[in-house]
Amino acid sequence: MNGPFTPSCPLPAAAGELVELAHGGGGSLMQRLIDSVFRPAFAATPADFTHDGAVLDFGAGRLAMTTDSYVVQPLFFPGGDIGALAVNGTVNDLAMCGAEPLFLSAGFVIEEGFPITELRRIVDSMRAAAAAAAVRIVTGDTKVVERGKGDGLYINTAGVGRVRSGVSVAPQNVRAGDAVLLSGDIGRHGIAVMSMREGLSFEFPVASDCAPLGATVMQLLDAGIPLRCLRDPTRGGLATCLAEIAATAGVGIRVAEEAIVVSEPVRGACEILGLDPLYVANEGCFVAFVPAAHAQQALSILCKAPGGEGAAIIGRVEAGDGRALLENGLGSCRVLDLLSGEQLPRIC
Amino acid sequence: MNGPFTPSCPLPAAAGELVELAHGGGGSLMQRLIDSVFRPAFAATPADFTHDGAVLDFGAGRLAMTTDSYVVQPLFFPGGDIGALAVNGTVNDLAMCGAEPLFLSAGFVIEEGFPITELRRIVDSMRAAAAAAAVRIVTGDTKVVERGKGDGLYINTAGVGRVRSGVSVAPQNVRAGDAVLLSGDIGRHGIAVMSMREGLSFEFPVASDCAPLGATVMQLLDAGIPLRCLRDPTRGGLATCLAEIAATAGVGIRVAEEAIVVSEPVRGACEILGLDPLYVANEGCFVAFVPAAHAQQALSILCKAPGGEGAAIIGRVEAGDGRALLENGLGSCRVLDLLSGEQLPRIC
Repeated sequence: MNGPFTPSCPLPAAAGELVELAHGGGGSLMQRLIDSVFRPAFAATPADFTHDGAVLDFGAGRLAMTTDSYVVQPLFFPGGDIGALAVNGTVNDLAMCGAEPLFLSAGFVIEEGFPITELRRIVDSMRAAAAAAAVRIVTGDTKVVERGKGDGLYINTAGVGRVRSGVSVAPQNVRAGDAVLLSGDIGRHGIAVMSMREGLSFEFPVASDCAPLGATVMQLLDAGIPLRCLRDPTRGGLATCLAEIAATAGVGIRVAEEAIVVSEPVRGACEILGLDPLYVANEGCFVAFVPAAHAQQALSILCKAPGGEGAAIIGRVEAGDGRALLENGLGSCRVLDLLSGEQLPRIC
Repeated sequence: MNGPFTPSCPLPAAAGELVELAHGGGGSLMQRLIDSVFRPAFAATPADFTHDGAVLDFGAGRLAMTTDSYVVQPLFFPGGDIGALAVNGTVNDLAMCGAEPLFLSAGFVIEEGFPITELRRIVDSMRAAAAAAAVRIVTGDTKVVERGKGDGLYINTAGVGRVRSGVSVAPQNVRAGDAVLLSGDIGRHGIAVMSMREGLSFEFPVASDCAPLGATVMQLLDAGIPLRCLRDPTRGGLATCLAEIAATAGVGIRVAEEAIVVSEPVRGACEILGLDPLYVANEGCFVAFVPAAHAQQALSILCKAPGGEGAAIIGRVEAGDGRALLENGLGSCRVLDLLSGEQLPRIC
């Protein structure tokens, strides 16, 4: 998930300003809220705010910790539901820290009148997702709010994982010369939720890519690939993810549009909905930055992983001024900006 | 906080049953929801469900993990606000595991239109509470939901702490002959929130006891007191807390009504509101079970701690059938049941 604690241009919120939906969209407005409200209060060390999770010394080792609240609407969508999303999203945030996901907590805010059969279905989906990701849900909490004061169900999950000795995965580690890999095709989660919500039916229905990424990351580490940075392009999509990393690392990132796989059903749905697939949320793929010499080996691992048919080396890192550039087949370039405002609210 | 994963009599939820406010009240209905929905899905090991947090092997050591969502209404109340509550509540759940609280995550679900000045005030309160409790808020998340789909602000915090070697704090450890200590007077949090919500003004206003308990627990451990079990009587109050522990440990707990300190303002407010102070929520006191030989030493530490004026040895553990009994000054006894249904919704 795009965490709230990622850096950008601090602009203090004006007095009287109200929270807008776009403040939750994963783009530049959310970053402004973070920089003006959360960051000054919680800044323990600056490095804590450039990632979706924190890596912390613990006894002789290091642990990673992360959290996300899930407010997706509808609660059930093709390819998943809020429960699977809440497990996989937090598992993936740990994996993106280079950590082995171990333990999850689960906090439920339930609206009065919510059907217990649906709650049971969602909890069962969490159980299955936790088993598939080899994590344990070890503690939890239940709150009930009055009818009309919630929206069915919100779930928060927090996660703890173990970071191996010597592993350091962070945007600051990205260097000119690194290869940029993408582990699969993009846009499926956002389109699946959006089409369900809007009651759209396409000739080729799109299912969310919601899936755990921990095992694939552990395979990359097991193979001795020096992972510089990992990020799952959730809210704000691939474009926002690349723009954030380029800005944090102070490098240029150049990716080739033709190398990024977008399935035909997703492309068609994006055209109908007027969306750019580069800004549509994903929940089962990730971007990896590795030294160029290790790119082919990393790619072969990604290709064999579940959902890895669309894996590709999509670009490279250059010396630069903190911008991400998209090159099309004709050689022309455009800057990838952070998502401004909201494109798809309540996507996760 | 009363976590969702505490044991009781499993009764499967009937098909078509809906979640009621009382399912979040911290009493027997909540336990039924947990036992019928959450527990079967998430039961990693049975021991995980008898506490508000989980203690887990991690590398060479052990960590404790806990979570709580905060939905208190109103957001600001005498003696605290949702931010201070979200930090102290999770710090206290770690402390009740016998753990040293270290790291917190914070997840915000914000309703569209929420004033940023209020958000700033709450976040600042979290910063101050974290500093006072010597914990770091290390990661977070922000979601925004549409106007009418939330209730201003919900906050989830999860926490991680370190459990010292040899420390084992759990209801199962309680033994006949143990002394029961209470660290302060009861009922202030529930009355503070309730009077604010109902617009009641009393001659002597009641402020919440919202405060961190980690330092006091560490002092008890530093003094070498063998802590058997700790529990903060939040939702459901002292009575529910004692009833739960008696049932889990399979012992009798006998406490003396006259030893339990209830301030005059709280007593007066309870009379007006028709509440039993034994069932009113607290956020800054705890119950400790220690071997009788260590009771006086533990009491002297509790008395010197902040808010410790009302600290007392309130009873003892006996062989028994899993019930908690309250003795009044005349020698008559009543069984303390779990809170049934909801007494004070949205108290935390």
